Amino acid sequence: MTFMAWNRPHLLDIESLTPEEILTVLDTALAFKAVGARAIKKVPALRGKTVVNLFVEPSTRTRISFELAEQRLSADIINFTTEASSLKKGETLKDTARNLEALNADFIVIRHSASGAPHFLARSIGAHVINAGDGAHEHPTKALLDLFTIRERKGRIAGLNVTILGDILYSRVARSDIWALTKLGAKVTLCGPSTLVPRVFEEMGCRVTHNVEEAIRDADIINLLRIQHERQRKTMFPGINEYTQLYGLNQDRLARTKPDALIMHPGPVNRGVEIDSRIADCDRSLILEQVTNGLAVRMAVLFLVNGGKGPQEITVG
Amino acid sequence: MTFMAWNRPHLLDIESLTPEEILTVLDTALAFKAVGARAIKKVPALRGKTVVNLFVEPSTRTRISFELAEQRLSADIINFTTEASSLKKGETLKDTARNLEALNADFIVIRHSASGAPHFLARSIGAHVINAGDGAHEHPTKALLDLFTIRERKGRIAGLNVTILGDILYSRVARSDIWALTKLGAKVTLCGPSTLVPRVFEEMGCRVTHNVEEAIRDADIINLLRIQHERQRKTMFPGINEYTQLYGLNQDRLARTKPDALIMHPGPVNRGVEIDSRIADCDRSLILEQVTNGLAVRMAVLFLVNGGKGPQEITVG
Amino acid sequence: MTFMAWNRPHLLDIESLTPEEILTVLDTALAFKAVGARAIKKVPALRGKTVVNLFVEPSTRTRISFELAEQRLSADIINFTTEASSLKKGETLKDTARNLEALNADFIVIRHSASGAPHFLARSIGAHVINAGDGAHEHPTKALLDLFTIRERKGRIAGLNVTILGDILYSRVARSDIWALTKLGAKVTLCGPSTLVPRVFEEMGCRVTHNVEEAIRDADIINLLRIQHERQRKTMFPGINEYTQLYGLNQDRLARTKPDALIMHPGPVNRGVEIDSRIADCDRSLILEQVTNGLAVRMAVLFLVNGGKGPQEITVG
Repeated sequence: MTFMAWNRPHLLDIESLTPEEILTVLDTALAFKAVGARAIKKVPALRGKTVVNLFVEPSTRTRISFELAEQRLSADIINFTTEASSLKKGETLKDTARNLEALNADFIVIRHSASGAPHFLARSIGAHVINAGDGAHEHPTKALLDLFTIRERKGRIAGLNVTILGDILYSRVARSDIWALTKLGAKVTLCGPSTLVPRVFEEMGCRVTHNVEEAIRDADIINLLRIQHERQRKTMFPGINEYTQLYGLNQDRLARTKPDALIMHPGPVNRGVEIDSRIADCDRSLILEQVTNGLAVRMAVLFLVNGGKGPQEITVG
Repeated sequence: MTFMAWNRPHLLDIESLTPEEILTVLDTALAFKAVGARAIKKVPALRGKTVVNLFVEPSTRTRISFELAEQRLSADIINFTTEASSLKKGETLKDTARNLEALNADFIVIRHSASGAPHFLARSIGAHVINAGDGAHEHPTKALLDLFTIRERKGRIAGLNVTILGDILYSRVARSDIWALTKLGAKVTLCGPSTLVPRVFEEMGCRVTHNVEEAIRDADIINLLRIQHERQRKTMFPGINEYTQLYGLNQDRLARTKPDALIMHPGPVNRGVEIDSRIADCDRSLILEQVTNGLAVRMAVLFLVNGGKGPQEITVG
Repeated sequence: MTFMAWNRPHLLDIESLTPEEILTVLDTALAFKAVGARAIKKVPALRGKTVVNLFVEPSTRTRISFELAEQRLSADIINFTTEASSLKKGETLKDTARNLEALNADFIVIRHSASGAPHFLARSIGAHVINAGDGAHEHPTKALLDLFTIRERKGRIAGLNVTILGDILYSRVARSDIWALTKLGAKVTLCGPSTLVPRVFEEMGCRVTHNVEEAIRDADIINLLRIQHERQRKTMFPGINEYTQLYGLNQDRLARTKPDALIMHPGPVNRGVEIDSRIADCDRSLILEQVTNGLAVRMAVLFLVNGGKGPQEITVG
């Protein structure tokens, strides 16, 4: 258990966190994970506080994970799902935010298609802001749950070889993962089509390769990104079948990894595209553990930005 | 009050229930109905438990009835409404279910267009599963609320003549009702156009007739099914006007029923189609009582699958 | 603090309220406003009561404000958003209402495109009904929050000059404001294009003018209505640019108002259309205070229709 260090009112990105702050989230999440296994899965930490889930870009999974975390902390919850287009027509994001502030919202969990929207919100209003994914920028709670899962299974992060495979350029998950992993001393390899994994990522301290065999050979963790049909730029992306052939994790490729290499994926999985269906379900897959840990990590983040000083403060509801 | 008999972790259908299990639900619902009439309509039975309402087919009424039941049991509730088409694209039902399990959902209330979806879910995951309607297969809580309502008004079920009128072939309500009524000793008559009420239902122990006068003449209960314009197969179904003329319950037909015959309908009512508007509102209509009782029955089901042993355990919230 | 006078089970409109009743809402809201500033923003006044937000016409803002008010009163909440078209197809408003009554709903907060829908509901069922906006008829909680805001900032209502500017004819906010302001002794001026501000409003005790300079010259309060592009009848409404030029509140016009004149707007603001963006954000703008006060007013209304006798009864949750 590390020294508790958290004084931030928001969680906007991983880039600005110190390694100690990241470890504080992980340790706090560990205490909250135990809450999830109890018969009564609630603590009163946010009783009488209002959390607004402001999802300007749709996301059922992330919204449900946050909503469950908020319920388990006994918060009052408002779901506000809208589209950027309708916000633009009548009202700016700033107007929406100031209205929520005028309603005494204590927390705003924001998902937005525009990079930087959570930072803008945090500068504009007094509520605690948590980034639930902004454009192609960051998705910090995803990275934190990835770190939590890796540490839980491998016992450490420093010195591990972590390979991220897929559309790195447009992935906020990849970007947050890279920041988090490198801050804690992992060696990160990025792999995918050259149009989607440009050399510029070497400046973030990563190894870049377009050869999948080389990328996975000595990996302790292989983190696959979801191929998102609807978002990939046509000119940059090969066909789905071609991607599967060149970069998909299949049985042949898995056989050439280290025997204790573990497989991660942010979900939802495109079975048969970026990952063979049996691999998704095998005992080296951490996909469902990531989901479970996501809930604990989001409880920890809400607890810490609210001024919670660490797991020793967590009491039963 | 019967002997309490319930050891099932799920409610998937009526077909597999024993008469004693059905009566246990009805007796438990009776205790919960009293809760609904109190100023504070809550008991703490599911405090700290998470219920996911997974509606893969839309249904405002059934969803609201379940949600109210869950609130009154003090559960935490996640509403997850989606469409089978969008689930198919990215993710199988099994993946969705395993994700909800990874989030430590305690209960999944599922409505799905595919028959057998709740059974599949119950085999796949550890959460309690409650069938809120699957394809043309079953809708068990509807049948239980029908039984509850009949027993409350008639004092018994055994020996009653119950006529179900409408599109039996494609109705999950009819199918669950038939199982429930015959298990408890009622004599069930099915009536409607021959394409929608085939003779094969005689194997379930029902009388089948296509003559509405014969069907309603000695009925103690006349249970009308909703004519669902959007679902009826064109080739099997006469026009709406023709249906109303041939099978609709109008004043003339009502005059030829037993004076104490009672009218039921699962709602929402198509006034002037399967039922005359004044009959829907008359004092022989149980339609609104069915709605009230549905809430108590759903509370009872949630309570029992959670391990509750009967009404004596129900405490005030 | 005035004498507490409230015995109504519903809030349907402002027209039928007495000045004493209006003041009772304002005084009760004052006590609830203090609750919103506490760390734990809840009172147990509606614990175990069910509130249905029946929004037959979409409105994110008003729905969120009511939902927050209900949460802070510890109510159980059902959100039922639908469209008049789908209600019409299968089911009348009366059927919907009687179903909600059969589910023992204690409160129905209704927004509906048809004038009089809340009154119809209140005659049909036993639940408390609160009008959250009906057609072009009334929006009583908006008027009450406007009065609350004016009284808080000006110390009184009687004798103030209040100008309402915009599409008066089709505005339920304007209609409720006119009733509320005139009942409490304010002098109301209406201004806008002649097609939208007919002389008939003089019968409600207002001054009507189509000259904006005259309307705002001696105003203590300038209440701007939102220009709703989608609703304005083409034949009655000038172009947006022309409206802005003729009636928009810009810096030039503001300079010719009394120095302590305050600006109100029901939101969401069309910046640059009915109001200059800087004016919306200046310290004479009460727009965000209106939002904050709306929450307190809605808590007060729910509390009073439930039989609460006044602020002295408000206890901490």
